[in-house]
Amino acid sequence: MSNVTRLTVRTAGGSYPITVGRGMLGAVGTLFSLDRRTLVVTDEGVPRAYAEAVASAAAKPLVVTVPTGEGSKSFAVLEMLCRKILDAGFTRRDCVVAVGGGVVGDLAGFAASVYMRGIDFYNVPTTLLSQVDSSIGGKVAVNLDGIKNCVGAFYPPRAVLIDPDVLSTLPRRQISAGLCEALKMAATSDAALFSLFEEGNAEERLEEVIVAALNIKKSVVEEDEREAGLRRVLNFGHTVGHGIETLAGFDENEATDARENGLYHGECVALGMLPMCSDAVRARLLPILRALALPTSTALPKDKILAALVHDKKAEATGIGTVFVDKIGSFRFETLTVSEIGARMDTAFPQK
Amino acid sequence: MSNVTRLTVRTAGGSYPITVGRGMLGAVGTLFSLDRRTLVVTDEGVPRAYAEAVASAAAKPLVVTVPTGEGSKSFAVLEMLCRKILDAGFTRRDCVVAVGGGVVGDLAGFAASVYMRGIDFYNVPTTLLSQVDSSIGGKVAVNLDGIKNCVGAFYPPRAVLIDPDVLSTLPRRQISAGLCEALKMAATSDAALFSLFEEGNAEERLEEVIVAALNIKKSVVEEDEREAGLRRVLNFGHTVGHGIETLAGFDENEATDARENGLYHGECVALGMLPMCSDAVRARLLPILRALALPTSTALPKDKILAALVHDKKAEATGIGTVFVDKIGSFRFETLTVSEIGARMDTAFPQK
Repeated sequence: MSNVTRLTVRTAGGSYPITVGRGMLGAVGTLFSLDRRTLVVTDEGVPRAYAEAVASAAAKPLVVTVPTGEGSKSFAVLEMLCRKILDAGFTRRDCVVAVGGGVVGDLAGFAASVYMRGIDFYNVPTTLLSQVDSSIGGKVAVNLDGIKNCVGAFYPPRAVLIDPDVLSTLPRRQISAGLCEALKMAATSDAALFSLFEEGNAEERLEEVIVAALNIKKSVVEEDEREAGLRRVLNFGHTVGHGIETLAGFDENEATDARENGLYHGECVALGMLPMCSDAVRARLLPILRALALPTSTALPKDKILAALVHDKKAEATGIGTVFVDKIGSFRFETLTVSEIGARMDTAFPQK
Repeated sequence: MSNVTRLTVRTAGGSYPITVGRGMLGAVGTLFSLDRRTLVVTDEGVPRAYAEAVASAAAKPLVVTVPTGEGSKSFAVLEMLCRKILDAGFTRRDCVVAVGGGVVGDLAGFAASVYMRGIDFYNVPTTLLSQVDSSIGGKVAVNLDGIKNCVGAFYPPRAVLIDPDVLSTLPRRQISAGLCEALKMAATSDAALFSLFEEGNAEERLEEVIVAALNIKKSVVEEDEREAGLRRVLNFGHTVGHGIETLAGFDENEATDARENGLYHGECVALGMLPMCSDAVRARLLPILRALALPTSTALPKDKILAALVHDKKAEATGIGTVFVDKIGSFRFETLTVSEIGARMDTAFPQK
């Protein structure tokens, strides 16, 4: 392995190292303390070899494979995991490792956070989206009655291992969608990373993009672990994006035919950024999105998107917190009414 | 209200005030921030008026009454509570209040800790045991497959309200059992409080006992919130006590006929202290236990108690961590084998 980058995230909830490097999965035994009972949680969509690499480095591994998709983020699956490790005799001194995308990390991390009031948690994200985003920040959760992450905790991992080699099994469209989350961070917080995208080098210099995105997220999380303020900057593109995702998204882990008809999370964010920036920023975003084969317009009716992005009546009354980018590498928070958001969408997605 | 005592517990997880005073339940609206959606969790055994006092002080109350007993500390009831408040539109800015004993506090606190990754939690303990013990310390949990507190969190409350007047509805036997938990703390950590018991004034000076016990627990918790070391002092009397409770205990909240035949938690602790102290300490403990009508001997076979107090095979191999009191107001940790514990029981409970 040529380059290995090591970052340390420091928060009130605890400090933890993130190691980024090609081939690092083979060194998992030196990065995590696995000389104990180790629950390895993965899902059916993750190549089996990745979970096995972790299991073979553990003294007493127990691999549990959950069904792919958001459906696994449930109280029922959480209870099943806790019961499995109780039956296997796990004590407070044992640990949990997630090997998969955001669903697996959220679920396994939440199980680790509640079992015996918290046992060690490690994360090996295997999608680009989870490598640049959800594996760092300490948010874990399951869903309830269709509300994403309704029930969860802030529970930092002990360590995170990011091996870009595992991305080689991902389809190109999923790489683009993951890159869009890094592009989003570049737009608000890192003009140099944005330039790398403009030069068309993002995919080729993937490790560099991952490390840059992690550094942005690290600094945001260190300042605002509990999402009291600054952390909302990560929601750039997510207000309108969320509305679009509700209407046209699909579960990232669902069957291939669903993917063909629906939009990836990152694709929804691509669309969601366009109304929330100045004309000048939009003019720079559009060619990047096109080069990555990300969408730049939507046929969805504006009123339906607006209805979907309003979560509750209160939001309608008091306004919706959004993130706006006037100039690459900067941002401001802005509370907008639903109709103001609609007006911005008219600008970004003109009727043909 | 004549005397009001206010303590502040300071831990890494957060600081919170504990207010102790007769009649304070009537002032709940000034002590807690209830100008929002407020889930009030209580159980069928708690006088309805107590939960109603809290509900009437809240802007938007929702009272949920769970069945009495440990059975309510389950994933199923936890999920039910989360669903109820989701349906009622609770956001991150709303709150939960527990009104009841340890079961209600543990359950409601855990629900508050996980809903939206944590909303404000307040506790109004209504049993003496929960007033002197479980309401302070930030441990919340549910049970899994018969393992108590298998799944939970460390989640400090925002504030605790302790009104000794609510104890007037408790039977005398339950008061004695609650006092025993305070006596346990006095034995290890507060010779003056122990003297108050010896003088036979504990029941009469209940508020003073509560405040003294809270101060002991506060200092222990402040030093060792996560139970890495010192906090184990609170387990004095609990090793043998737990074995006895497994065999002869009953659910504190079960039907009255079960109570008559079984032992209260505090009664098990009374018995559990006797083998774990010097002869001199035992000679001082016995008259206090008798005066409080707490048990001082057991007809249970020693080998059955020993089998019940060993939780897992590992404990048998590596020894069991216990707390020993040589002199009132002091303690030491000691790792004993099962047969060493048996020998101490022979001394404390001689065959007739």
